[in-house]
Order: sequence, then structure tokens, then C-alpha cells
Amino acid sequence: MSQRVRVQNFGVSRDGIAAGEDQTPERPFGHVDPGELMGWAFGTAHFPGREDGGGSRGFEDRLTRDFTHGIGAEIMGRHKFAPASEPWPDEAWQGWWGEEPPFRTPVFVLTSSPRPPLVLGKTTFHFLDATPAEALEKAKAAADALDVRIGGGVTTLRAFLDADLVDEMHVAIAPVEYGTGLRLWERPEELEDRFHLERITASSGVEHCFFWRR
Amino acid sequence: MSQRVRVQNFGVSRDGIAAGEDQTPERPFGHVDPGELMGWAFGTAHFPGREDGGGSRGFEDRLTRDFTHGIGAEIMGRHKFAPASEPWPDEAWQGWWGEEPPFRTPVFVLTSSPRPPLVLGKTTFHFLDATPAEALEKAKAAADALDVRIGGGVTTLRAFLDADLVDEMHVAIAPVEYGTGLRLWERPEELEDRFHLERITASSGVEHCFFWRR
Repeated sequence: MSQRVRVQNFGVSRDGIAAGEDQTPERPFGHVDPGELMGWAFGTAHFPGREDGGGSRGFEDRLTRDFTHGIGAEIMGRHKFAPASEPWPDEAWQGWWGEEPPFRTPVFVLTSSPRPPLVLGKTTFHFLDATPAEALEKAKAAADALDVRIGGGVTTLRAFLDADLVDEMHVAIAPVEYGTGLRLWERPEELEDRFHLERITASSGVEHCFFWRR
Repeated sequence: MSQRVRVQNFGVSRDGIAAGEDQTPERPFGHVDPGELMGWAFGTAHFPGREDGGGSRGFEDRLTRDFTHGIGAEIMGRHKFAPASEPWPDEAWQGWWGEEPPFRTPVFVLTSSPRPPLVLGKTTFHFLDATPAEALEKAKAAADALDVRIGGGVTTLRAFLDADLVDEMHVAIAPVEYGTGLRLWERPEELEDRFHLERITASSGVEHCFFWRR
């Protein structure tokens, strides 16, 4: 099977907001609370880094346990790696994830100011000034025949959707509204011309939207 | 994390029937139609053996794509391996799955009449006269620190549930009733004293029940 381009566990509000515009080192999602958007994932047994043996093992755990399976590389935007307010390129900043980021593959960070690669645990970050199509070509080559994850943030995901480069996408709609912020969509139905859409509501109240190409 | 005992993608009718009693070489589920019980899985992109690139990639595909992940051995009953009407031990019978069975791990077949191991593709079948606890001990030792799948059939699954050896279970309830046959339960709530239960209905009309230990 050919390499696929996948989006996994991407969280938005009911009104389509994925992050605030007021990002800081302390608040990677700005005024948006990641605990509200991603709380469904934090409570599952397979949330990355969880090692206490606890957590739920139902439907939503099937989503977190799938995070690394079959994925050989990730592409992310500059603001998923570093806060907007951080001087750039500032090589002291090593991302939000500590010494063992959960990706454990090559990760391509899109930025107009590249810097040397950064190795943290099993993850290597490469910094790339490239279009979505160019970045995808590099990520596929680095992915050892496995799939490529588009990791966000929302601006990067929009760019890949606009370039029609996404094969499969899971978006989790949390039961909260923000009114302002960085928006993925007005409504999920916008994508139905290109994608099948299945919507499943979990016992957490989160609506999980699964998209795959028509 | 310790090795877990898991049940995956086990299909039953609304009235709890998983197979007919009238099994033959042509009808492994007897009067029960596996297309009715398991049709939800056949249509997914990751159903074992599917290689045409088609199929759905929604919620139910998350269940079939998880089938081999983290599993190091399976335990199955004699009637999952061979029909009741087949002479036993008849070493000409090599199971229902052709030359490359989907398990790709050691598989322990419980039988009162053991025969020598059978290697088919990446799967090795071992035939064992043992209690559930004894079989599980052998399967865990063979699973290379990974989890053990209890593969059924329904009599075997009931024996492992009765011995309280199951950690996590996914059962798919198809929108069909049979009245007679081999029964897993009267109702899924029977297990709620020992397990959390989450119930999710897919767009296929199948209700997926997720159980994990309290």
C-alpha cells in the first residue's frame, strides 16, 4: 500500500477553534485551554507518556493507541514547535515536550528561518523552509515507507487541506465554544465534497469526526 | 506495563448469539451468517488480507487496524480451528485461513486431543490440552512480553471470562437476532460488576461494546 497522509487526534471547539492567537511559552494554545480541547485524550490509557497503568480503555483509547502505529514522520508548523513570542531562531528552545517527545520519528518543522537539526530522544526535528508539497516529499522519503502525520497547528493543517494533500483525518470536537481564535472550519461538512465523513459521539461528550477520501 | 489479556472484534447478535451449533467445514458459524455478524469489519480498509486500498477508514476501521498491534499470541478453542464434524486429530485439516493466517504469532488451540505443531506462513499453531489458566501461562511466555488475544469461539471466551482472566474486551453487537445458537450472554450489563462498559453505535448500525477492568 502506498504511503498515506494522516491527521490524528486534532482537537477543535464546537465553533471550529483549535488555538488562541495569543500564544506564549506558558500557554501554547493561548486563551484556549488544551485541557478542554484534549481532555478526552488525557484520560485514556494510551495517552503518550502515561505509564501508570490507569486510564480508560474504551472507544477513545482506540484513538490514542493508534497515534504511532504505521507513522514514519510528522510535519508540523513553526508554532506547534515554538511560541510566537520566542526569538527565532533561538536554539535554546527545544520544543514543549521535554527530553523524550512523543513523536519518535523524524519531524519536519516548517519555518522561514531554518536552524540545524535537533535530536531529542528518539525524535529528530528538521527545520525546513518549504511549501506543503515540498515538505511532504521530504517527509515521505524519511518515513521508511510508512505514513506521514500532519501534526498541526491549525494554520499548517489548513495549508495541507487547501493543497489537497490529506488522505485521512480524525478531528475531535470538544463540547466548548470560544468565539475567537485560530479556526479550522466553520462546519465539518465543508469537507464533504472531498471526504467521506463519519461522526461518532463518545460518552465524554466529544464528537469524533473521521474523514477519508472519496 | 504488564502483559494484558484482550478480546478484539468479537461479534454477537442482539440476543447474544455468536455461532450456530451446527458447524460444518463449509459453514464455520453453522446457521449463523458471519457476513451478518462481521460485515462491519469486512468493509473496513484494515480487515486482515484486504490489499486493494479500498474500504472505510472511520471509527470501525480503528478497530480492525488495531487487531495485530501489541499482540504476541492468541488462544483459541478447538472449534475455531476445525469444524465439529471433522475427524480429530486429522492432520490434513489446516484451519480455515489458507496458507497465510491473519494471526502471525504463536496460536494455542485448546483441545483434548493434541497433535504436533503446524506452521502456516508467519503463524504457528500449538495444540494444547490445558485449563484456561495453564494455556494463558504458556501463551504469555510465548508472546515476547506482548499481550495475549483470546480469539474465541464463544465457548472458549466464556471459559476465560468465568475464570476471570480477561482484562479488556471489545464485542460488536450486530443488528440481527437468531433465537438459538451458542450464546455469549443474555445482556452485556451482566459483566458490569467486573468491567467498565462503554457502548458506541456506529453508522453501520452495529453497537460496539468496550469493556475494561474496574
